[in-house]
Amino acid sequence: MLAPEVETTAEDIAEMEVRGAATIARAAAEALEAQARDSDADAPAQFREELRAAARRLRNTRPTAVSLPNALRYVLNEVEGDTVAALRASTIEAAERFRDQLDRAQDDLGAIGANRLRDGDTIMTHCHSTDALACVEAALDDGKEIEAVVKETRPRKQGHITAKQLREWDVPVTMVVDNAARRYLDDVDHVLVGADSIAADGSVVNKIGTSMLAVSARERGVPVMVAAQTLKLHPDTLTGHTVEIEMRDETEVLSDEERAEVGDVDVENPAFDVTPPRYVDAIVTERGQFPPESVVTLMREQYGEGTSEPWAEE
Amino acid sequence: MLAPEVETTAEDIAEMEVRGAATIARAAAEALEAQARDSDADAPAQFREELRAAARRLRNTRPTAVSLPNALRYVLNEVEGDTVAALRASTIEAAERFRDQLDRAQDDLGAIGANRLRDGDTIMTHCHSTDALACVEAALDDGKEIEAVVKETRPRKQGHITAKQLREWDVPVTMVVDNAARRYLDDVDHVLVGADSIAADGSVVNKIGTSMLAVSARERGVPVMVAAQTLKLHPDTLTGHTVEIEMRDETEVLSDEERAEVGDVDVENPAFDVTPPRYVDAIVTERGQFPPESVVTLMREQYGEGTSEPWAEE
Amino acid sequence: MLAPEVETTAEDIAEMEVRGAATIARAAAEALEAQARDSDADAPAQFREELRAAARRLRNTRPTAVSLPNALRYVLNEVEGDTVAALRASTIEAAERFRDQLDRAQDDLGAIGANRLRDGDTIMTHCHSTDALACVEAALDDGKEIEAVVKETRPRKQGHITAKQLREWDVPVTMVVDNAARRYLDDVDHVLVGADSIAADGSVVNKIGTSMLAVSARERGVPVMVAAQTLKLHPDTLTGHTVEIEMRDETEVLSDEERAEVGDVDVENPAFDVTPPRYVDAIVTERGQFPPESVVTLMREQYGEGTSEPWAEE
Amino acid sequence: MLAPEVETTAEDIAEMEVRGAATIARAAAEALEAQARDSDADAPAQFREELRAAARRLRNTRPTAVSLPNALRYVLNEVEGDTVAALRASTIEAAERFRDQLDRAQDDLGAIGANRLRDGDTIMTHCHSTDALACVEAALDDGKEIEAVVKETRPRKQGHITAKQLREWDVPVTMVVDNAARRYLDDVDHVLVGADSIAADGSVVNKIGTSMLAVSARERGVPVMVAAQTLKLHPDTLTGHTVEIEMRDETEVLSDEERAEVGDVDVENPAFDVTPPRYVDAIVTERGQFPPESVVTLMREQYGEGTSEPWAEE
Amino acid sequence: MLAPEVETTAEDIAEMEVRGAATIARAAAEALEAQARDSDADAPAQFREELRAAARRLRNTRPTAVSLPNALRYVLNEVEGDTVAALRASTIEAAERFRDQLDRAQDDLGAIGANRLRDGDTIMTHCHSTDALACVEAALDDGKEIEAVVKETRPRKQGHITAKQLREWDVPVTMVVDNAARRYLDDVDHVLVGADSIAADGSVVNKIGTSMLAVSARERGVPVMVAAQTLKLHPDTLTGHTVEIEMRDETEVLSDEERAEVGDVDVENPAFDVTPPRYVDAIVTERGQFPPESVVTLMREQYGEGTSEPWAEE
Amino acid sequence: MLAPEVETTAEDIAEMEVRGAATIARAAAEALEAQARDSDADAPAQFREELRAAARRLRNTRPTAVSLPNALRYVLNEVEGDTVAALRASTIEAAERFRDQLDRAQDDLGAIGANRLRDGDTIMTHCHSTDALACVEAALDDGKEIEAVVKETRPRKQGHITAKQLREWDVPVTMVVDNAARRYLDDVDHVLVGADSIAADGSVVNKIGTSMLAVSARERGVPVMVAAQTLKLHPDTLTGHTVEIEMRDETEVLSDEERAEVGDVDVENPAFDVTPPRYVDAIVTERGQFPPESVVTLMREQYGEGTSEPWAEE
Repeated sequence: MLAPEVETTAEDIAEMEVRGAATIARAAAEALEAQARDSDADAPAQFREELRAAARRLRNTRPTAVSLPNALRYVLNEVEGDTVAALRASTIEAAERFRDQLDRAQDDLGAIGANRLRDGDTIMTHCHSTDALACVEAALDDGKEIEAVVKETRPRKQGHITAKQLREWDVPVTMVVDNAARRYLDDVDHVLVGADSIAADGSVVNKIGTSMLAVSARERGVPVMVAAQTLKLHPDTLTGHTVEIEMRDETEVLSDEERAEVGDVDVENPAFDVTPPRYVDAIVTERGQFPPESVVTLMREQYGEGTSEPWAEE
Repeated sequence: MLAPEVETTAEDIAEMEVRGAATIARAAAEALEAQARDSDADAPAQFREELRAAARRLRNTRPTAVSLPNALRYVLNEVEGDTVAALRASTIEAAERFRDQLDRAQDDLGAIGANRLRDGDTIMTHCHSTDALACVEAALDDGKEIEAVVKETRPRKQGHITAKQLREWDVPVTMVVDNAARRYLDDVDHVLVGADSIAADGSVVNKIGTSMLAVSARERGVPVMVAAQTLKLHPDTLTGHTVEIEMRDETEVLSDEERAEVGDVDVENPAFDVTPPRYVDAIVTERGQFPPESVVTLMREQYGEGTSEPWAEE
Repeated sequence: MLAPEVETTAEDIAEMEVRGAATIARAAAEALEAQARDSDADAPAQFREELRAAARRLRNTRPTAVSLPNALRYVLNEVEGDTVAALRASTIEAAERFRDQLDRAQDDLGAIGANRLRDGDTIMTHCHSTDALACVEAALDDGKEIEAVVKETRPRKQGHITAKQLREWDVPVTMVVDNAARRYLDDVDHVLVGADSIAADGSVVNKIGTSMLAVSARERGVPVMVAAQTLKLHPDTLTGHTVEIEMRDETEVLSDEERAEVGDVDVENPAFDVTPPRYVDAIVTERGQFPPESVVTLMREQYGEGTSEPWAEE
Repeated sequence: MLAPEVETTAEDIAEMEVRGAATIARAAAEALEAQARDSDADAPAQFREELRAAARRLRNTRPTAVSLPNALRYVLNEVEGDTVAALRASTIEAAERFRDQLDRAQDDLGAIGANRLRDGDTIMTHCHSTDALACVEAALDDGKEIEAVVKETRPRKQGHITAKQLREWDVPVTMVVDNAARRYLDDVDHVLVGADSIAADGSVVNKIGTSMLAVSARERGVPVMVAAQTLKLHPDTLTGHTVEIEMRDETEVLSDEERAEVGDVDVENPAFDVTPPRYVDAIVTERGQFPPESVVTLMREQYGEGTSEPWAEE
Repeated sequence: MLAPEVETTAEDIAEMEVRGAATIARAAAEALEAQARDSDADAPAQFREELRAAARRLRNTRPTAVSLPNALRYVLNEVEGDTVAALRASTIEAAERFRDQLDRAQDDLGAIGANRLRDGDTIMTHCHSTDALACVEAALDDGKEIEAVVKETRPRKQGHITAKQLREWDVPVTMVVDNAARRYLDDVDHVLVGADSIAADGSVVNKIGTSMLAVSARERGVPVMVAAQTLKLHPDTLTGHTVEIEMRDETEVLSDEERAEVGDVDVENPAFDVTPPRYVDAIVTERGQFPPESVVTLMREQYGEGTSEPWAEE
Repeated sequence: MLAPEVETTAEDIAEMEVRGAATIARAAAEALEAQARDSDADAPAQFREELRAAARRLRNTRPTAVSLPNALRYVLNEVEGDTVAALRASTIEAAERFRDQLDRAQDDLGAIGANRLRDGDTIMTHCHSTDALACVEAALDDGKEIEAVVKETRPRKQGHITAKQLREWDVPVTMVVDNAARRYLDDVDHVLVGADSIAADGSVVNKIGTSMLAVSARERGVPVMVAAQTLKLHPDTLTGHTVEIEMRDETEVLSDEERAEVGDVDVENPAFDVTPPRYVDAIVTERGQFPPESVVTLMREQYGEGTSEPWAEE
């Protein structure tokens, strides 16, 4: 029997009353905790099946978000015991640890990333990433002077948000168009970006333009640092799944007025691209920094081996 | 004594009543021709000095344009003879040959570039270049089907002009933001760009973003073809001069409204960047195609050795 | 005391009545299981020593096969307990798990590898690998259309076997000589090969020609995917051992008639070569996909740390 | 009026009674010489037109051979004078010089190429090239000891011819399949190949497999040396033309018996591939060695600028 | 209460009566063992706090050495149990295991590294590393013939020590200046160096000049092998800390007499540099060989996750 | 009959009373001029033969210097005319032009090289080259501020001479050992070196260590600029000859005292190494800057085609 809180949470997620990767993850973990707490299962097998059913209910609300199944995987991965009591305790403990980790993740990540930045360094950013900015903020808190070259990041110009945040922290900012990146790479010490998700083969899915920037950074001798909480790890990729790249609205690229002038053209507007691990120097998570080729180890540690879905019906 | 036409032309160029690289070059060659035709010099030395003086007068009107000195170099480089008559004849002939070459240059270049394109090929363009498009037009005239992925080319989005022209020729166009280039490189057979100028060390000065595109094209295994009339060769670079990169208005990058939102940031807006020859597969001119490392030979052939300015006072 | 089944199995392997990597591995695991089941050891130490002796007996039958010691390592690595009963139970369980894993390995691997293939993709193959083909078969089962460019793979032309299998599955096949690979790389989406063994430093030992193909694939921007069951992991390499490359018969390269014509030449005919990890994008196993640089972690997990042989006399 | 010898030669070439790149080239030059000698033209324009007509007649016999138009271009390129007598003399002289150069070309090339080889060096060969072997022969004549690793060069195994020739000169030969090339690159000092033709963009058209070998040679740090007489330069490519790659018979790849076994597959059997100049260290011609990027200069020197065909009707 | 032996050891380390990475590490482990043995704590929490206090006391004696905190991390990482007795036992056992591992580490490492060397191989060395030489010694003990090209390693010419040691083992040695390395890379089979420390992002900190050698070795196709005991792993880098590079005395570069002659120049004399993992083929430790990108896994296994200091006050 | 001045000059060169590349070249040109001036040949053929004999006499004094044959080639290459008088005049004119060019060469080269340096740039130097320093001096004369990182350049530490010269010009200098180059490449804008000679295949022969520096500079994204007068071009290499690398005294590497300590080692001490053209961005000569792949064109222009020696007996 599903706990009422599971159903409520599932509905809230489905209706997008609960939004944002971290918020969804937290809600899912809490729902599993409620299920464990409220279960009146007699036998361990029943308890486990109910827990899987709760996870399935939650999973199906938003099939494409990565933080939701990660929360479920994390908790289910830690459930153990031979009695209902032990199973319940371990579930609750796992959910609490997950939430606790979630609370501290960005701060911990920022502190780690900040250690890679030296006083006086200049970074180049692409798009807007709170994980990446957490590294800068922690470096500033450590008393380091940091400057930034901010790529505007067409089509949505999220570079403006990044610039604004950096200016609020008094970080000197030079804004450039994306096309100017290679020229200004010679003036920077790090490329610092976030990630939408990270795959088991070490590739980094991030805002469109990241891979071209990373290729150019390698060519110019500038290290590339990706800041990404473990919530961004994508355990489905352990089984070879590729990350689906969202295609966004054409008008982000070509407004109606522009199209009227230009004529009848196709527009392709992928939200993300894939950077191979060989162009990334380090992935900074709240659990330490890793070469991209080793993130798979962390992914399995955190979310299980991934070759089967822990919520699958048995 | 300077011919009146020299003075008139100089004033027209200085006051920008004569504009555009090719138009300026043509006017300068005609002015030298007029000087040669109208000269009443008695002695070869006097004739030569007058010609140099005319060239200096013209040269000083626009110190940074490359087509103007190229026209002067071309003509002066061909002046020869032991008598005033012979000098006059060779000057007039050189000026006529220069204009004639200028008239045919884009068509000739287009025909040559078209030969590199096969039926069914897809090109990727950056910015807007009539030389590059001449190659496409000639290929279409040859009955080949060509498709295009057009980068919008921030900040000025000249990709829109390119797309419009291609659509008028019924070329299927896919428009993408600059950040999406690497992803779509896997779908194209050639990168095809123009050039603002080409240096003696084989590097290509072109619209900002070209070098990052060329680096990525090499990484993805796509050949890069630069279409550039010999008028774009920059003989000053024979003597090690680097090409000055124009910095354009900040509002092209950040509008006043955007700046009001973003806050107090620096903006850098270079018009061009420099692509090293190792990332370019061929430079297509009206005199044939060349590896970028060999263009220096053509440059010396066309404009002289360049270690001295042919209009210098002796 | 060795169980009779250990002796029988050892003889069968030695006399090659049991053949094939997977079959040998299964027999070895079953022999250890028999040893555990039939042991009348009184003390844990005696039980363990008997188990090691059984493993040594089996190990010595075929010193160069990798699947045999892997079976032994896998089982011995899982033996634990303080009593003979516990040791027996854990041995039997490990042997069963090993056989179970072996049964499912190629299917599981195929399902994972298939996820890397998209509908409409073209693969390039080298040699013949049932692991690689399992990925194609699973992709076909998923309803994807796959095409193949098949390298003939001199000297033994195993590409013919691959082509035949693919044709039986109705996969369109283009056969080319090995020399033509770089030209056709521009038409394919993946290089897909198997492995003879995989070393702790991430390098892939596979049919001669694989490394040249992988180098060219990187140069042309085509990802390289290696399909290899964990049975192919080579734990000896954890201790720095290099994989011995078998030299095969000269007549595979040069028939007697050809030699009569050509004259007195040396012939070198290595069966395999070594591809460094930097030219491989992913290794697909039945336990998930990994960057080649991370396979060492899986190797240690599966077969133990490897710095000592678990069957060594104490 | 065409000289009878022109007609005879044209017929011989068309009917393949005159065969082989050098033989055809020699015959064509001699035919132009005969035309010049026998012409009874009154006026220079008439003489020139007859010469062009003779060239057109010869040119049309075999539209794809490169040595034939090269002979014509070479001679026509040197025709000069204001009188019929002067034109005749320069034509005859050019034809003689061309034949003379042709006679000595392979020896001269061999002597130059031999200088790049040191005593004790080992070369790796691909396919069979008399130009390449001329370098080895000259090195042997200089008293150097040379060894060779010979790739068999599927599909036609011309490596056997190379091996046989080298053995006749007592050069120690190791024969390997093409797939083994990368492994044996570590044992050689040079890759030494010939060329089918060389393009203005510096790329080398040679037997299929050359480009993969060159890419691997660069990766292993082995220099690549291409031996090619100037007769192999392809002036059509000055105007962007790409070299047409011949597709050869499928049975070279898959015999009828093999096909019966394998099933219904496509076979692609291109004769040549294209090696970009960046993977070639030197092109050795009878007129000296050149970086591939500079061969365009030699091509224009030898055969004219190439943007128009010298035999075109005016 | 701190055990007296902790205090004594701390003083000995602080006053440098205990020196050398391995000696310090052993002393620290023994001090923790003494603390565990002598503790009269009543409660587990008290025992743990005393152990952490002992670790802090030891840690603070030499803030920059890496072997000291590694010893403390290793032992504290293994402490477990719910009773004082259990905690004590696990502490003592961990300390003993650590010392035992330390005793065998160089021999074990040497045996593993030796397996990568084949009979007849030539190595190139940089600086002086007993770990690297242990590999050579073990290879010699295995009966392999090894030769060496020894870089002198300015400024301190530690290559002389390496050469002397190798000569004592009768290894043929060719001494070259550092500038000659690329030329002699073509004559060697391995670059073999030690490490000062190894970071979580896979980069190798070693004697200045290592990174240039590794870059050149990759360019020449020579594999690079780093020999480093796990004592050299630097767990602080798990949290993004970069390794501080010591600047040494200027007179090592420029003697006073030389400076008198040269004039007033700055001298920079860094002791180490950082080699990115992509230029290293394998890291050989006493626990096996690893691709540099996977060493982070070993580091976490050996010294804990590292995101917090195990001796921190709670 | 040889002019007495030819004999005197030959003896002076042979006995090293005339030393230094430029001084020898000047003396050789003057000797040919004397031969032309003093010849009493009746016939052009005789005059030419005498001139060749004079050249042979001079050539044979120092078979390995490159400037001597270059002077001879330059002059003989320009000799033309149908009468003795014309031959004499052209010889004298050629010799004068050669000397004139020699006088101005370093200044002209310096002015060209200076144009590549921007105000505020930092260069890295290797060894000591007056051509390279001429570029710095000219840049300083242009009012630019230049800083330098000077590699000491073992074994002979010619970096000290460079540093001293730069200090005399008030250029801030940072001295580093050769091993530290890669680390400091991130702080410099150019690598600026001279050349011992430049080969027809575009490779640069320069002080040992140059090639490793150039490889690292490319890896770090720093352009490499070679300053070399045309006197350094090596026309023998047009015919495939490789440049002989001098092996210098072992005691430069290992003093007798050091050897006594180290033991019985071989020492290899090559004076120069060879940098492939792909690692060089520009070669600056007094006749302009060139990509290394195009220098062959200048070489042939200056010294003739080179496939035969112009002084050879006919």
